[in-house]
Amino acid sequence: MYFATFASPHFLHALEYVTSTFVRRDDAVSSSCTDVGFDSRKSATHIRVADFGCSYGLNTLKHARMTFSSILKAAISGDIQRRIELQYIFSDLPQNDFNALFRSLNPVGPPLQNFRRNENCCKESMEHVKFFAAGVPGSFYTRLLPEQSVHFCICVFAMQWLSQVPAKVMQRGSKFWNGGHAWIDGPNRAHVFAAYSQQFHEDAKTFLRCRSEELVKGGVMFLVALSRKNKELGESSDSVGVDDWTEDLDSSWQDMVDEGLVSEEERDMFNVPLFTFHPSELQKAVECFKGTLEVLKIELMEDCEQMHSDECKQLINDEEAFGRRQVGKIASLFMPLVVSHIGEARAQELFRKFQVKASDRAKTLQHEKIEGMYVNVVVAILRKI
Amino acid sequence: MYFATFASPHFLHALEYVTSTFVRRDDAVSSSCTDVGFDSRKSATHIRVADFGCSYGLNTLKHARMTFSSILKAAISGDIQRRIELQYIFSDLPQNDFNALFRSLNPVGPPLQNFRRNENCCKESMEHVKFFAAGVPGSFYTRLLPEQSVHFCICVFAMQWLSQVPAKVMQRGSKFWNGGHAWIDGPNRAHVFAAYSQQFHEDAKTFLRCRSEELVKGGVMFLVALSRKNKELGESSDSVGVDDWTEDLDSSWQDMVDEGLVSEEERDMFNVPLFTFHPSELQKAVECFKGTLEVLKIELMEDCEQMHSDECKQLINDEEAFGRRQVGKIASLFMPLVVSHIGEARAQELFRKFQVKASDRAKTLQHEKIEGMYVNVVVAILRKI
Repeated sequence: MYFATFASPHFLHALEYVTSTFVRRDDAVSSSCTDVGFDSRKSATHIRVADFGCSYGLNTLKHARMTFSSILKAAISGDIQRRIELQYIFSDLPQNDFNALFRSLNPVGPPLQNFRRNENCCKESMEHVKFFAAGVPGSFYTRLLPEQSVHFCICVFAMQWLSQVPAKVMQRGSKFWNGGHAWIDGPNRAHVFAAYSQQFHEDAKTFLRCRSEELVKGGVMFLVALSRKNKELGESSDSVGVDDWTEDLDSSWQDMVDEGLVSEEERDMFNVPLFTFHPSELQKAVECFKGTLEVLKIELMEDCEQMHSDECKQLINDEEAFGRRQVGKIASLFMPLVVSHIGEARAQELFRKFQVKASDRAKTLQHEKIEGMYVNVVVAILRKI
Repeated sequence: MYFATFASPHFLHALEYVTSTFVRRDDAVSSSCTDVGFDSRKSATHIRVADFGCSYGLNTLKHARMTFSSILKAAISGDIQRRIELQYIFSDLPQNDFNALFRSLNPVGPPLQNFRRNENCCKESMEHVKFFAAGVPGSFYTRLLPEQSVHFCICVFAMQWLSQVPAKVMQRGSKFWNGGHAWIDGPNRAHVFAAYSQQFHEDAKTFLRCRSEELVKGGVMFLVALSRKNKELGESSDSVGVDDWTEDLDSSWQDMVDEGLVSEEERDMFNVPLFTFHPSELQKAVECFKGTLEVLKIELMEDCEQMHSDECKQLINDEEAFGRRQVGKIASLFMPLVVSHIGEARAQELFRKFQVKASDRAKTLQHEKIEGMYVNVVVAILRKI
């Protein structure tokens, strides 16, 4: 998912906040001092940007390129004299493929040919802003960088992943027990929802504390995550921000149990550590840092998959194609979790069952259902000075 | 190769230079200011250390652990009040296996269990120094980090690798032409040596310029590299700091040509970008940065393979074992270069031939030859204040 299709202006606005605070200020200082032989003009302004949960691939590079080109544009349009050195930090779990990521960067940063052509930008201006890449392995629910060392950080489609499944939903006999379901669904969903919401609150506080320590004063974090429209849990599964995958996934697990391929215990111990938090839930966590953090922007935005009407009709009519599309979407999210829980072979079987169910569902679906509207939350938070 | 077996005191001395400059100074400032409510005591001292050409595996982690434990010891013994945040930057070419490296770090840095036991160090002191890991992909013959951002950098057994084979040794008809040889050997070796030495001079200047920009004033670089005893090129192959591998490797290439497995042209275009530089050659490069760099220490040291007499005798008597040992040593250095030049299958054949020749050589060898004394140069260079 590429956030810039719907949230690009917010991203640029948050980054502009940072460049005007640090790049322009530094430049003003050095300009005013040239007459007394002050040599700060010779030294560069350092800007450190971190992408937490960066993954690897095209979108990862797009984030880096967007950051680099925005800072470059700001430097050109603002007639900044002082050189800028941008260190761009790619951060993700050690399981991320950093080898693929590092090998996809060319020696001087993300490929910039298109940028130069589009912006009609000369080689000299490009050399005005140097790009340095770095990678940092680790969970963003821990401190990953030295304190007060980052000016701008982003976390795109990653914060909906909790640090863990809330323990109590896997405690048989607890009122939060989620047996028979892999996520927030079923008769006990109100309690399960409460447990997930509480886990999110703890995780969000940890995330915000770590980032507020790492950010310089005046630095900004920009977050995009899967969200939901309704603050309170409603009747429909839509109210937790999903389509029909939970039902099909639960029913596939049940088939696995019925066929003796997994035990009931194994099935019940599988839950998905995903939470589509509402803006108010994040705001509640930010309020724990009143003295240091301030929400600049928080907004729900819809991201439409933008499928043509013809494509939609074709998908409904081609049940197998629809099943393949659904299983691709869900497996890309959950396959690693399922594999580590029941191994490769049984995971394949689970998703094979899921695909059949998804194909069947094509018959009952309508146009709107397929087009798939996702609700995202877009956030900018300032580390107060 | 693990440099600490012979150069540990020099490493510790160079690092001590850095801790006393930055850690003690910062601490003194914050201590003297507490009475006026100065809050710098609350902020941590940042120390950034970079390992250029870090590779991955046990030695890579040993360097990190040695750095971390030295800083920790300095903090404990010096009764440093201010917290320290150490960012340790692993840097190597993008082809390095950063995935393996990152996955070998535990969440809070390199495994420290042994350190805690050995140093009888309590948990509280450990928390006094925080360890943050980062990776930076790229050639150390380019700028890799923002200017004035590193306090201490090391480069261990990597600087003997040139950025490229000097172009003129592959120009047929040039007086530097090295046809029929893969390294500095044969009748034209004086000219070939001069070309390699000049390439090293250019590369060393590039390396020193990049590092002097990246180091903070008062920062130190610590280098260890394969070296040689004699400043001038002597008669024997020993004088360029090698044993008999060049002769056996050249003769293996010749067999490949004779058997029609590689063309003469292909053979002649393969040269090894390795140069065992003499301390004086590095010093000449440092002198180009008189205003900014100062050699604190430069010393030739011998690193004996430390083989027992019995083992030596056994090796001489077991020709096949000796051949395996030699091919293992040489292939670990040059295999990737040979594979990228003539492909996997022919590279295997080349090293098979090499192994046979090495086995034959066992018969003519004496004890001392096998024990293999390497000559290394150990260097500490200060970025002047």
